[in-house]
Amino acid sequence: MKRAVCLISGGMDSFVSAAIAKKQGYEIYGLTVRYGQRNKKEIASAIKVAKFLDVKRHIITDVDLSWTRSALTDRSLKIPKRVRRGEIPATYVPARNTVLVSIALSLAETVDADAIFIGVNAVDFSNYPDCKPEYIKRFQKLIDIATKKTSGGGKIKIHTPLLLMSKTRIVKKGLSLGLNFSITWSCYRNGKKPCGRCPSCILRAKAFALAGLKDR
Amino acid sequence: MKRAVCLISGGMDSFVSAAIAKKQGYEIYGLTVRYGQRNKKEIASAIKVAKFLDVKRHIITDVDLSWTRSALTDRSLKIPKRVRRGEIPATYVPARNTVLVSIALSLAETVDADAIFIGVNAVDFSNYPDCKPEYIKRFQKLIDIATKKTSGGGKIKIHTPLLLMSKTRIVKKGLSLGLNFSITWSCYRNGKKPCGRCPSCILRAKAFALAGLKDR
Repeated sequence: MKRAVCLISGGMDSFVSAAIAKKQGYEIYGLTVRYGQRNKKEIASAIKVAKFLDVKRHIITDVDLSWTRSALTDRSLKIPKRVRRGEIPATYVPARNTVLVSIALSLAETVDADAIFIGVNAVDFSNYPDCKPEYIKRFQKLIDIATKKTSGGGKIKIHTPLLLMSKTRIVKKGLSLGLNFSITWSCYRNGKKPCGRCPSCILRAKAFALAGLKDR
Repeated sequence: MKRAVCLISGGMDSFVSAAIAKKQGYEIYGLTVRYGQRNKKEIASAIKVAKFLDVKRHIITDVDLSWTRSALTDRSLKIPKRVRRGEIPATYVPARNTVLVSIALSLAETVDADAIFIGVNAVDFSNYPDCKPEYIKRFQKLIDIATKKTSGGGKIKIHTPLLLMSKTRIVKKGLSLGLNFSITWSCYRNGKKPCGRCPSCILRAKAFALAGLKDR
């Protein structure tokens, strides 16, 4: 059976991305990375997502990036209320996806997986440099020679099935795959309920509204 | 003052690499990553190296790669006695340098450094895929667009001053910079003294012998 490492954050996008991998017949190795996020709800959701997808193995690992001074890791910084077009928001974590994909690569080689699935999306948060098609392309070129497996002729391919999808299309895709989005967590804050006001909550609400659906 | 993130492992090569950065006038941000090594001596040495170089800041951070099944992280695997030419040894940690450089990149962007120094060497352990010139070249291409800083036109350059040096030349270079190698630790094992028999000890002994020097 072909194997894939799927990055699972606890949010909607990585849930859909991993579900697509499963649909494509991959045996799933879920990977959740705690990088010092303020938000602990994400990890609890990631565990639920991994269970929902009945993954072969779910690895939760730590990399301490708490010194990065991002609004996602540093409590002294405010989560921005809105993000202007063309601007990279304070929630940007320096080199986060580069670190995440590197760890996924390490796991992929360890379990002899051919694929890494990551739910990056260049449409709604198009300002993040590490969510763009050219970024993924260059990472693939690095991977092609970076490991024992790939330098010996084996393949480890990064899959980004959501890269060019709108958030609305992602919601619809997930529902068509029978996913229960109520187990995911999108809010940047750590409250009992989603705040409904941060950029991530607003984006999620908009996506459900445009899809003509109700978010439980 | 220009700033550099220098990866410091506790071994000789990263010591010389960081010393070269200092010599070139960089303010040094030392970065030591605990990735689940069996060898705790390395970290103690890294702290001594950072002190010796009088770094601006020394960040010791963790990324758990203990699931990688390398002889460096997994106690059930044997450290190989010798390494055949053309073979990648059991001490290879999947995607290790990719993970290390990614974390260094995150720190470089955080502290606004222009440079990352890493003591990789393609001569003596030429079989590691992530120590080769082409690997560094492709990582640089990725970095050029991977972060807010670099995608906005700023530079973060990977420096590999030891890439093509023989181990003997590295020893001589370090001594010419006034480094005290007795604070470093090369042995793959965790004994009170270096074992003298693992590939890393043998390489070090050979280098000192060829340089006509005594290793304290």
